[in-house]
Amino acid sequence: DLSIGELQKNGYDHFMLKEIFEQPNTIEQSFKGRIKTDNSDIVLGGLHNVMPKLMDARRLIIIGCGTSWHAGLVGEYLFEEYCRIPVEVEYASEFRYRNPIIDEDDVVIAISQSGETADTLAAVKLAKERGATVLGICNVVGSSIPRETDGGVYIHAGVEIGVASTKAFTAQVTILTMMAALLGKERGKLSLEDYRVIIQELSEVPEKIKTILKTTDHIRKVADKYKDAVNALYLGRGALFPVALEGALKLKEVSYLHAEGYAAAEMKHGPIALVDDNLPVVVVAAKDRYYEKVVSNIQEVKARKGNIIAVVSEGDTQLDKMCDDIFEIPRSHPAVAPLLTIIPLQLFAYYVAILRGTDVDQPRNLAKSVTVE
Amino acid sequence: DLSIGELQKNGYDHFMLKEIFEQPNTIEQSFKGRIKTDNSDIVLGGLHNVMPKLMDARRLIIIGCGTSWHAGLVGEYLFEEYCRIPVEVEYASEFRYRNPIIDEDDVVIAISQSGETADTLAAVKLAKERGATVLGICNVVGSSIPRETDGGVYIHAGVEIGVASTKAFTAQVTILTMMAALLGKERGKLSLEDYRVIIQELSEVPEKIKTILKTTDHIRKVADKYKDAVNALYLGRGALFPVALEGALKLKEVSYLHAEGYAAAEMKHGPIALVDDNLPVVVVAAKDRYYEKVVSNIQEVKARKGNIIAVVSEGDTQLDKMCDDIFEIPRSHPAVAPLLTIIPLQLFAYYVAILRGTDVDQPRNLAKSVTVE
Repeated sequence: DLSIGELQKNGYDHFMLKEIFEQPNTIEQSFKGRIKTDNSDIVLGGLHNVMPKLMDARRLIIIGCGTSWHAGLVGEYLFEEYCRIPVEVEYASEFRYRNPIIDEDDVVIAISQSGETADTLAAVKLAKERGATVLGICNVVGSSIPRETDGGVYIHAGVEIGVASTKAFTAQVTILTMMAALLGKERGKLSLEDYRVIIQELSEVPEKIKTILKTTDHIRKVADKYKDAVNALYLGRGALFPVALEGALKLKEVSYLHAEGYAAAEMKHGPIALVDDNLPVVVVAAKDRYYEKVVSNIQEVKARKGNIIAVVSEGDTQLDKMCDDIFEIPRSHPAVAPLLTIIPLQLFAYYVAILRGTDVDQPRNLAKSVTVE
Repeated sequence: DLSIGELQKNGYDHFMLKEIFEQPNTIEQSFKGRIKTDNSDIVLGGLHNVMPKLMDARRLIIIGCGTSWHAGLVGEYLFEEYCRIPVEVEYASEFRYRNPIIDEDDVVIAISQSGETADTLAAVKLAKERGATVLGICNVVGSSIPRETDGGVYIHAGVEIGVASTKAFTAQVTILTMMAALLGKERGKLSLEDYRVIIQELSEVPEKIKTILKTTDHIRKVADKYKDAVNALYLGRGALFPVALEGALKLKEVSYLHAEGYAAAEMKHGPIALVDDNLPVVVVAAKDRYYEKVVSNIQEVKARKGNIIAVVSEGDTQLDKMCDDIFEIPRSHPAVAPLLTIIPLQLFAYYVAILRGTDVDQPRNLAKSVTVE
């Protein structure tokens, strides 16, 4: 099913960069045919058989590894917010070995780009043995996890070659956003009006990402400024906390620079001891209900002379003055902010790595799909 | 109520070291009068009024910040294992701002050494407003959180002066272990035999910690070997994963060295890219059901020339040969392994900091009790 183009770099220096730039298209592929053309409704055929289970679910358990686990954490915020169902997100490796508590009213959602991740596949089998309903969110059609699960949704991101996942992450989050909105509407926890606002906002994400991708030169310049850093912290709150974790993971994976993500308010309980004038602190600070609190966290870092790089909503003059460098994203509804805020962080990681001279498509020690335990 | 001795260093160079060495005594204070002298039963008077709620609880939600959050993660493994109740552990700062789902069948457990942590106190108030039953696990008697909660247990660790929490952590974990064992027995999920084994094991923890404290010279020598490192990773699985997080936090707080904790199996999903011959990797590898898997993780790091420091059970000749340095702990039941394995990591952080010349009792940028949001 692969066209030659999918396996070539198409003029980009690396697959990672090509895949970052593909995201307006891959996200559209994720929701195409699943959002009605008048943006009135979401249809997810792969959930049809399991919808009764989802309607009655008392708890969702999301399992994954690495980037897929981060997508799951975004999903936790979305499902809890829009569906009011308690969600537990677990590392597949921890879930499978610890005699997990699985109730027949629980629905397990397994996320894996390859559909072959060993720990996730084993967790799926365990959950099934225990009688749980299990869904998959995978990219590779016909892979092991989709074959083992009771239902699920393919992300349709196309072949991902870069070892550091980019377009698979945003496609996973797109699917989770659709699932959370649909289930929230069906369970009566999300008003039809809010449901349609989220669909409308999702449909605008590809164009907004194109706008962000036009700022690549700026992001490269900022990367050049910080390329010799030794460490970095990434901070966020709410659904942007997992975006901070994912941004930090990208930098780790491709640049070998030790970046760590934290829930922003946790910083003063320890990590702020690391802050001095050598430490870049990347803050995901889109305009949402947490914004004022995030501004306070930024002030705490500035008071200790840390360098702040902030991902901010367009026209945020307050943070523009306060921060050393900013990456702007178009204004949007909080439901889609994870999809937008991760883009500059993917590009930042890519350019830091390029400027440090690492092999971004084949970073040392890493495999694309972890099929060993 | 303070004796002068409690506020003095009593011959130790720093409060942190004094408090590490106090742990055989403070852990005993935590269970004294609460474990019957024949080790047959646990009595927690502060839970008396809320025991019916705990018996019926469908979910436990544990909230805390920093070290207290790590104690909560240990609690998650213990409660799920011994009581078979689903547990959600949340950062207090995230819980309070995100319109959390609280059911009247949920019991919220707030953990805070000072009892004054601003985010945790606000989360307690929010949970109460929503009708939840709220318990406190605090050190400072008469502080705000115990006054707001429906019940709870004081940890009786004595005044903690060092900004990096040590004896409060082990006392918190001691209380959580007693609570999980008691509730597991009462809910019929833990056999009377296993219940008494856990009590017996808890009662032996102070003597076992004394044995570990006799290895301080060795730990100092290992600290000297790694003191010039730039980064470190800490790995663990199961209930020893939060021990890895806590060990990494200690090193961050007092030495300003960027240490990060990870669930061991997650390493190959990204962080292993950081591994080279300059990176110390600390692995918490006590003999438990995860042991063979942890050995595999160690082999993966060694194959990339990482330096392994492992906390191992006494007489582990396999890891003794495989690792660069080992810290031994006495053999014990997995229920108390978190209480033992954290001790060498506290000492390691202390000595790395001392050898780097930082102010361990007053690390830069940190406050003992975070009473601002």
